[in-house]
Amino acid sequence: MIWYKDNKNDIAVSTRIRLARNVDSVPFPNALKNKTEVEDKIKDAVLKGSKHFEFVALDDLKTEIKTALAEEHLISPQMLEGSGKAILLNKERTASIMLMEEDHIRLQVIEPGLAIDEAYEFADKIDDIIESGVQYAFDEEFGYLTACPTNTGTGMRASVMMHLPALTMTRNIARVAASAGNLGIAVRGMYGEGTEADGNMYQISNQVTMGLTEKEILEKLKTIVNQIIDMEKKAREALAKNNADELSDRLFRSYGTLKYARSISSKEAKSLLSDVMLGQNMGILPKEGKITPLECIVRIAPSFISAGESMTPAERDKKRADFIRDNI
Amino acid sequence: MIWYKDNKNDIAVSTRIRLARNVDSVPFPNALKNKTEVEDKIKDAVLKGSKHFEFVALDDLKTEIKTALAEEHLISPQMLEGSGKAILLNKERTASIMLMEEDHIRLQVIEPGLAIDEAYEFADKIDDIIESGVQYAFDEEFGYLTACPTNTGTGMRASVMMHLPALTMTRNIARVAASAGNLGIAVRGMYGEGTEADGNMYQISNQVTMGLTEKEILEKLKTIVNQIIDMEKKAREALAKNNADELSDRLFRSYGTLKYARSISSKEAKSLLSDVMLGQNMGILPKEGKITPLECIVRIAPSFISAGESMTPAERDKKRADFIRDNI
Repeated sequence: MIWYKDNKNDIAVSTRIRLARNVDSVPFPNALKNKTEVEDKIKDAVLKGSKHFEFVALDDLKTEIKTALAEEHLISPQMLEGSGKAILLNKERTASIMLMEEDHIRLQVIEPGLAIDEAYEFADKIDDIIESGVQYAFDEEFGYLTACPTNTGTGMRASVMMHLPALTMTRNIARVAASAGNLGIAVRGMYGEGTEADGNMYQISNQVTMGLTEKEILEKLKTIVNQIIDMEKKAREALAKNNADELSDRLFRSYGTLKYARSISSKEAKSLLSDVMLGQNMGILPKEGKITPLECIVRIAPSFISAGESMTPAERDKKRADFIRDNI
Repeated sequence: MIWYKDNKNDIAVSTRIRLARNVDSVPFPNALKNKTEVEDKIKDAVLKGSKHFEFVALDDLKTEIKTALAEEHLISPQMLEGSGKAILLNKERTASIMLMEEDHIRLQVIEPGLAIDEAYEFADKIDDIIESGVQYAFDEEFGYLTACPTNTGTGMRASVMMHLPALTMTRNIARVAASAGNLGIAVRGMYGEGTEADGNMYQISNQVTMGLTEKEILEKLKTIVNQIIDMEKKAREALAKNNADELSDRLFRSYGTLKYARSISSKEAKSLLSDVMLGQNMGILPKEGKITPLECIVRIAPSFISAGESMTPAERDKKRADFIRDNI
């Protein structure tokens, strides 16, 4: 299931596992001349090992479709740069294998909700399929070798996307980020490093890939995510108890603006949709939309709105407002 | 007809004529010991001359009802201060005679729309009724004598309440006020001198009461009001032509906020209702409310909302939001 469709999870929204792998005795992508040979090897292994995957050359796709893949988190923003990039994508759109990104292989699995073990098991299975046709660059002491040493070891980045409006509203998010950071867990904006937390969406992920086993990393992440869930729940309860009127007024106004605006930026819409998501989950706002606020947050991104057409930002803002009014 | 009920006028909203009169050979109210005797004389003349008026002692009314009279512009804010104040009010609530305000008699007539001549004729008729039982303080050279010399002469203040959102939005209102001022016509906020133009409502009135006849003053006011109506219309046309999308988005958002807010201040509500009034008159917003935005602007004033009950501002803001959602 695509992670954002009919997703009822309101705090831990989705889970992503990413594994970085490289083929043995071949230079990393940035120094590799003949990429096709390595790509073909990986492609053959995957297409032979699974009927669910297909090969997609990104050059064959329109810019907007590529950007949409990035906004669905199926490819990284880096894959949009330059040419000659390709991925392997499963039909359910829950797993993708980016070829020749920073590493030869960047395999990732995305599941709705908090599903760290399930996502890891699925990633591990795909990892085995690839390995059946490819010899990985692996060192007994260091583990999986990667282009950037921060990924060496497990090569794994496990992350949970969390919707944390109450912790943001009550200005507790910086404290949460700091204490998670002390335990080697990073708290970042929705689209990864250096991005703002639009719509109060944060990625909680492991910073360390070496010196711990996959299981240890996943357990630690799970513990911290569960702690943050508790904190967010408590913050929501406190808001409901101490600021019920202000909260209700704010959430209804956000809803009203989305239902009436004729032009809206992506940033403002995400912020208001976060309010609607919170309001619906707290039972303050009615659930009357055709799609969930979360799906709406994903589908109002510029590339989804322009959907292959060339549009000015003003045209997109109008079309976005129309889309939201029709769906929320 | 009460001026704000079913009032379809969108630029010149209402017309008010106020006549200041004093009884001859009696000190002005601020120096008058026995007010009752003078009051009785005026009261007798009016009740004898017209079946439409009744005598109302303001001390008999609750504070909120008195404030509501001020918000309907039937009494001046000064009448709310102190005790012992009385008025004569016609049943249609289109005319009131304030007794012992700054002058012995402050007679005023309010009509919906631009109705300068009609309002003056009605005021003149009531003036004659009072004069049938009372000798006015009148000087052949100066005209009607009043407590404040700025009213001496005709004793008349004619004012038109105007809704000027486009001139305000395009920042032309200061220029309009300055050029009207040069011609002896003042442009002020909704509730007179020193008040802000909440809801883009302005009072356009004569500053000069001496040296001109009533007819001359009224003609001058009429000319300037008609010029401002033209300017407001042109400003609206320009907005519709050059900023259609921004305007539509703004007006719909204001409408959405009013339809969804759970708490709203009088100031914010007036501003948003001004947008709805503009939007409906420009054919941008649907007319689906139970009452007009203008009536809503009058009826959401603090005293109308509390309606005799003792309420905190937060309680009023909630009740105001409920009232607006139900009616707009």
